[in-house]
Amino acid sequence: MGLSRRQVFGATGAGALGLAGAGVGGWAVARDGGDAGAVTSDRARFAFHGRHQAGIVTPAQDRLHFAAFDVTTSSRDDLVGLLRTWTAAAEEMTRGAEVGGGSPQPYDAPPTDTGEALGLPPSGLTLTFGFGPTLFTKDGRDRFGIADAQPASLRELPHFPADALRPERSGGDLCVQACADDPQVAVHAIRNLSRLAFGTAALRWSQLGFGRTSSTTRSQATPRNLFGFKDGTANIKAEDTAETDRFVWVRPEDDPAADWLAGGSYLVARRINMRIEQWDSTSLAEQEAVVGRDRTEGAPLSGGTERSDPDFSRQGSSGPLIPVDAHVRLAHPAQNRGVQLLRRGYNFTDGNDDLGRLDAGLFFIAFVRDPVTGYVPMQNRLSKSDAMMEYLQHTGSALFAVPPGVRPGHYLGQTLFG
Amino acid sequence: MGLSRRQVFGATGAGALGLAGAGVGGWAVARDGGDAGAVTSDRARFAFHGRHQAGIVTPAQDRLHFAAFDVTTSSRDDLVGLLRTWTAAAEEMTRGAEVGGGSPQPYDAPPTDTGEALGLPPSGLTLTFGFGPTLFTKDGRDRFGIADAQPASLRELPHFPADALRPERSGGDLCVQACADDPQVAVHAIRNLSRLAFGTAALRWSQLGFGRTSSTTRSQATPRNLFGFKDGTANIKAEDTAETDRFVWVRPEDDPAADWLAGGSYLVARRINMRIEQWDSTSLAEQEAVVGRDRTEGAPLSGGTERSDPDFSRQGSSGPLIPVDAHVRLAHPAQNRGVQLLRRGYNFTDGNDDLGRLDAGLFFIAFVRDPVTGYVPMQNRLSKSDAMMEYLQHTGSALFAVPPGVRPGHYLGQTLFG
Repeated sequence: MGLSRRQVFGATGAGALGLAGAGVGGWAVARDGGDAGAVTSDRARFAFHGRHQAGIVTPAQDRLHFAAFDVTTSSRDDLVGLLRTWTAAAEEMTRGAEVGGGSPQPYDAPPTDTGEALGLPPSGLTLTFGFGPTLFTKDGRDRFGIADAQPASLRELPHFPADALRPERSGGDLCVQACADDPQVAVHAIRNLSRLAFGTAALRWSQLGFGRTSSTTRSQATPRNLFGFKDGTANIKAEDTAETDRFVWVRPEDDPAADWLAGGSYLVARRINMRIEQWDSTSLAEQEAVVGRDRTEGAPLSGGTERSDPDFSRQGSSGPLIPVDAHVRLAHPAQNRGVQLLRRGYNFTDGNDDLGRLDAGLFFIAFVRDPVTGYVPMQNRLSKSDAMMEYLQHTGSALFAVPPGVRPGHYLGQTLFG
Repeated sequence: MGLSRRQVFGATGAGALGLAGAGVGGWAVARDGGDAGAVTSDRARFAFHGRHQAGIVTPAQDRLHFAAFDVTTSSRDDLVGLLRTWTAAAEEMTRGAEVGGGSPQPYDAPPTDTGEALGLPPSGLTLTFGFGPTLFTKDGRDRFGIADAQPASLRELPHFPADALRPERSGGDLCVQACADDPQVAVHAIRNLSRLAFGTAALRWSQLGFGRTSSTTRSQATPRNLFGFKDGTANIKAEDTAETDRFVWVRPEDDPAADWLAGGSYLVARRINMRIEQWDSTSLAEQEAVVGRDRTEGAPLSGGTERSDPDFSRQGSSGPLIPVDAHVRLAHPAQNRGVQLLRRGYNFTDGNDDLGRLDAGLFFIAFVRDPVTGYVPMQNRLSKSDAMMEYLQHTGSALFAVPPGVRPGHYLGQTLFG
């Protein structure tokens, strides 16, 4: 692929990371020079408007509340009305304002905002919206006159070996990813969007993530997952605009029948339970062999430091230093035709089961330009061969098309419904 | 009650809040001058040792992971062994060290620490341990030879009107309250303690709280609960040492047969689900009448500011400005024979039900000198008459005796088992 105009400008855009974008300048910056999430001068506040939706290459916030919704109306107008309402509310909440804060609050009506984030700063809130396959067609029906625009790659993910998916934690017509550095702000956002959806869409499932496991910019330290290892070291970073253009953002020519998705992406969500107790009784040697990295530094077992490229051919006394079934090997772009993901994962803990085992793991989110080439083959390989699968169980799964960012005065999904 | 020596010294202790306590000075400060949680010079690190356990009057941290355990052994030695092990691990984790960090890590054995907090600061972690009624007697059996020392007030809480308790979210032989400003640190602590308990005790239930709803010191702002209101304004603060001595800390003479609990307290835990959707469709006027405070400032409806005392007799055009069934009235010490609580509540959200309603609310924790006089009468009054009960459902309940703090070289519960 040659360099596109956006790739050329992308270098400038990456340099602008952390610099000011005054007013709706986030959009201007994004339009004119590529962007890395429309970053404003205040680290803790991100512009809602932009070429792309925020919350993808935005520096990964610490906390997550993710929600999937079932649309309960059959009216296209009601659905579009909800998207307009959500657009306005998302813009308000992203800048730290109350929902409906522009209007006086009548005393004899319910408050327009539920109030638990009153007085809190924006806390870096981003809201990222997606459309599931079932929004387009369900049981063979064209629900809202958009079946013809369903992207070819927006189909239910295939069954992977060892999947143990629970329907009540999978699928959905719509999704909202709320990321913020204060969980109260993320929960407040989902709750208010859910409330605004009353009568039009209902929560299908939702997931809190208490700590991020991915870095999306070079300046962020790599956090640890609940296996105690640094995760996502080889993740695409916002600064890698050549990579984000190649592996994250959909282009108009990718699917001409669904060119409304240009500038958008696909969001893959997987709820991955970790067999914590089993992992914790495994030797450090075995853990490191499974991961393919050392635990303390996160360096590949072939040597070097965390950021060193793994040397898959380097031999030890009894075979390759990075075992053939190590996670880092099977997940590495070198083993996946060069395919890369932009990950935005979060640790979760949801209580425990009857046997006292923690219901905990990784809520995996990846943004990809095309799940058919960018996720499915890799996950098939991992499911079949990854030594780590012994300690994992995928209990939830969903795929959404993430429309492009919203211009001022427009609404979410307007390129599809407008 | 006259002023005890501790009350006199308490004023000094409160003044020391935030001042340095070098080395194990936390204990020295606590022993010699009362304490407010054995605060060290670093806000984000609290001493493990002290006259009282940390995590009670310690400035309330932002995040919670609470766990209740069933003891699965019948051996007193094993139980005491667990308490010794937990003591050592809690001291290590509280100062930000790895569990077993003092020993070299053999490569062919499981790591002594699960690793997900490696590299993270102590984050203000406190671990507070308690003993449930069933640790002493269960099905009429004296399980560990401590039945005679069971405090008279340590009995299962009575059934309150409108309780809808779920056994799998209630009770427990042991509890651990992990509070920290980083949830990964709190989750790490519970996970490691749970792991160390393997074969001796098993997780019965656990609860994450994503945001605190209580302030325990005067310098902390009052946060908001998921009703959007400031909560716990009238909470006892750490600086109120006369009140903590009177209402929080157990004295030797309180229960001579259980004098091992002197310097400890009782922990009441209630999982209180909020009917979020019902609340959100209620007018602001009704919400404020139910709470008895205004939403924006948190001032009593009788006037003033957040910290103003409510004037329950002040009349409006149609009755008292603070309605007779307002929460603030029924929960106020003036209506409860002067009884006060030290609260340490947290907002929680655990997904949603089949109808799309959020499973969310308040995980209520209170520390009281005696639950029979300090909690039960008030909760009976609230359950029967509080207008807020229409929007609440108590789904979990537990009571624990919280032994006093641990001296260096001693173990948790040594005054009971030693």
